[in-house]
Amino acid sequence: MSNSARHRVVIVGGGFGGLKAARALRRAPVEVTLLDRTNHHLFQPLLYQVATGVLSPGQIAPALRSMFRHQPNVRTLLAEVTGIDLERRVVTAAAAEEIELQYDTLIVAAGARHSYFGHPEWAAIAPGIKSLEDAAHVRSRVLGAFELAEQASTDAEREAWLTFVVVGAGPTGVELAGQLAILSRRVLKGEFRRIDATRARIILIDGTSSVLPVFSEPLRERARQDLIALGVDVELEAMAVSIDERGIEIDQHGRRRIEARTVLWAAGVQASPLTELLAAGSGAETDRSGRLLVLPDLTLPGHPEVFAIGDMVSVEGVPGVAPAAIQEGHYVGKVVVARLAGRSSRPFHYLDKGTVATIGRTRAVAEVSILKLAGFPAFLVWAAVHLAYLVGWGNRFEAVARWMWTLVARNRRERLISTQSLADDQVAVAERLAG
Amino acid sequence: MSNSARHRVVIVGGGFGGLKAARALRRAPVEVTLLDRTNHHLFQPLLYQVATGVLSPGQIAPALRSMFRHQPNVRTLLAEVTGIDLERRVVTAAAAEEIELQYDTLIVAAGARHSYFGHPEWAAIAPGIKSLEDAAHVRSRVLGAFELAEQASTDAEREAWLTFVVVGAGPTGVELAGQLAILSRRVLKGEFRRIDATRARIILIDGTSSVLPVFSEPLRERARQDLIALGVDVELEAMAVSIDERGIEIDQHGRRRIEARTVLWAAGVQASPLTELLAAGSGAETDRSGRLLVLPDLTLPGHPEVFAIGDMVSVEGVPGVAPAAIQEGHYVGKVVVARLAGRSSRPFHYLDKGTVATIGRTRAVAEVSILKLAGFPAFLVWAAVHLAYLVGWGNRFEAVARWMWTLVARNRRERLISTQSLADDQVAVAERLAG
Repeated sequence: MSNSARHRVVIVGGGFGGLKAARALRRAPVEVTLLDRTNHHLFQPLLYQVATGVLSPGQIAPALRSMFRHQPNVRTLLAEVTGIDLERRVVTAAAAEEIELQYDTLIVAAGARHSYFGHPEWAAIAPGIKSLEDAAHVRSRVLGAFELAEQASTDAEREAWLTFVVVGAGPTGVELAGQLAILSRRVLKGEFRRIDATRARIILIDGTSSVLPVFSEPLRERARQDLIALGVDVELEAMAVSIDERGIEIDQHGRRRIEARTVLWAAGVQASPLTELLAAGSGAETDRSGRLLVLPDLTLPGHPEVFAIGDMVSVEGVPGVAPAAIQEGHYVGKVVVARLAGRSSRPFHYLDKGTVATIGRTRAVAEVSILKLAGFPAFLVWAAVHLAYLVGWGNRFEAVARWMWTLVARNRRERLISTQSLADDQVAVAERLAG
Repeated sequence: MSNSARHRVVIVGGGFGGLKAARALRRAPVEVTLLDRTNHHLFQPLLYQVATGVLSPGQIAPALRSMFRHQPNVRTLLAEVTGIDLERRVVTAAAAEEIELQYDTLIVAAGARHSYFGHPEWAAIAPGIKSLEDAAHVRSRVLGAFELAEQASTDAEREAWLTFVVVGAGPTGVELAGQLAILSRRVLKGEFRRIDATRARIILIDGTSSVLPVFSEPLRERARQDLIALGVDVELEAMAVSIDERGIEIDQHGRRRIEARTVLWAAGVQASPLTELLAAGSGAETDRSGRLLVLPDLTLPGHPEVFAIGDMVSVEGVPGVAPAAIQEGHYVGKVVVARLAGRSSRPFHYLDKGTVATIGRTRAVAEVSILKLAGFPAFLVWAAVHLAYLVGWGNRFEAVARWMWTLVARNRRERLISTQSLADDQVAVAERLAG
């Protein structure tokens, strides 16, 4: 069989879903082209640790190319998808030049971005963490706020720089707020001369009546208590009404304003804009978050050769979490293999392996079926699960070393900012407010 | 004694010199303000390893603040110096707002930048590595060139993307060329499907007749042989005549052109622009590289209260290397202590502890007085010296772990690029050339 006669699979996105789909095709007589806007896979569940200086970007983002070095049927391309023609079965992508890729099977796993609930103008003020660039930006904003507090000329300015609001109390918001508390209470303690970093206010707000809504009630309450013990103000049933450079207005049974120079976003997600291309071409519907409603075998209506998986799709009973994307990627790879062998496949079935979220340094909550864990035992489960999914033994080893380091030493490895990075936003704000 | 009556020392720059000066003042009855444009010290000798993906930025750049946590007489400020008034003894600096700092003693250790020999327009085309931003940029350029070679539509384009020119065969140029050779011959081997990364051309050019001119003849020749063994084309007595987006023209007993999409600069240095402020205010002279000619006690003529140290000054018989800056910083700190105690000090004396440079993974050349080493023994000296000067046991431990990893595994930890980072320059070039 000549190469050109091989079944061509194009995979868009090197996240959990795309990666797993490509892996599931490793022995299949196919030619896989894996497209990503970056040259790396990104372990998003640990991104908040890059944003708070625990891990280096490289430790959670192995190069896609090196992951597929020994799988010769995968070709990796660094390029951004610009179009999908479902009729001609062509994906167009751009890097140096525009590339056209003909496919026999298309697997789209392009993930999700932040959603600002109809307020796109908040994006510039309240950054979230979805990419490594985001994480570096948030790190610079957070550490820069302490630097500018040290230099502030009035008490009001100083307090506003020392007030941090995290919007959204899902796992990312809880983990981020917990790390901010540790940063201020422990890591930065004693490093400043004019401010007391430990007096920084960390405020976690959420529109619902509890933190970590995916967990059952006793664990939600335990997580809230753990956050309070770390020094986080947990404000529930509180909605963001407006956000500007000086602070945030919230509605919590009545409106009030919080003067805060740093507002971080961990609230909504919005499916990749590629869903619109796929919906327009196939007539598939999308939900409120822009996620595609796919068929039970994760294909588009009328297009059995096009799969969509991960955070960009909505499947009944399947949450938007990494394990779901992984299972979907694996399933889709196996469906392609089965079809090539002339076999049929069952619909996708999600296996809920449980949920875990960490709070601060050594605490977590974990729920696996009827088993509920909290505190240090849950933290051990959290660490084991995240290490198991982290790609590469070297990265696992380094992550453990850094976590142990953060337990023992009052410091963080990755704390780099410069006046150049500050100038991108904070200094401009500070100058406007001062002037 | 009240705080306000204390002797005020302002130190500009948290590099080797500034750091050591602040440390030498740890028991002195002074108030030190340490100003830097970034929040970190930078271990420049290992910056090329960040540029080539071996180390993470955080591993060579500890936060200045945390280094002085236990030295209460040091206050660290993240700000860029905008003016020095030698008469009023005031330093002005800007971050959020403009700050005025009154000093009794001023220590300026602001380092050096790249010099493009009267061709400032080359800076945008041929980046060098002096800061972490530079290193990330060079890493993105280098890894991006391989990505764009994989996508190139003609053989000529492909070859131009696979041709890398390093200008300047001092320690940085040699180390960078060596790492590029390992990257292409070993790390990226087998990762691409359309190009053979091992066939990349790495060309090291220098205007003089040898590499590593600071070493004695047999070691220079040995280093040249080691580079050739790694697959580096060493072109000596070759001057850069012109550099553009497509390549470089060199004059090597006659002019010729090299089509190369990636030209990296490791040639000249130019003292910090702050030297001009100091020269204008004191009448001190500067040399060809803009370095201040300071008095034997490292002060400015007519201003015994102002010291200038490190790469921004020129002192007879003292090379522009890290150990010199360290010794100068220590000396200046001790002079300040002695003056406060009413004692006089001797002129600065430089102790040459020897020189070492590494070539590739396990080779180096080292020269300590009459002792000359090459190959693996010199590499061990190189590693020991660099670990000794690297700040913090955690960073030392991680650096050793990564170095051992690069010896064993054919991979690098920090290889992150995105179409976003490529778009900054390479894609624009590629599009112009293609279009």
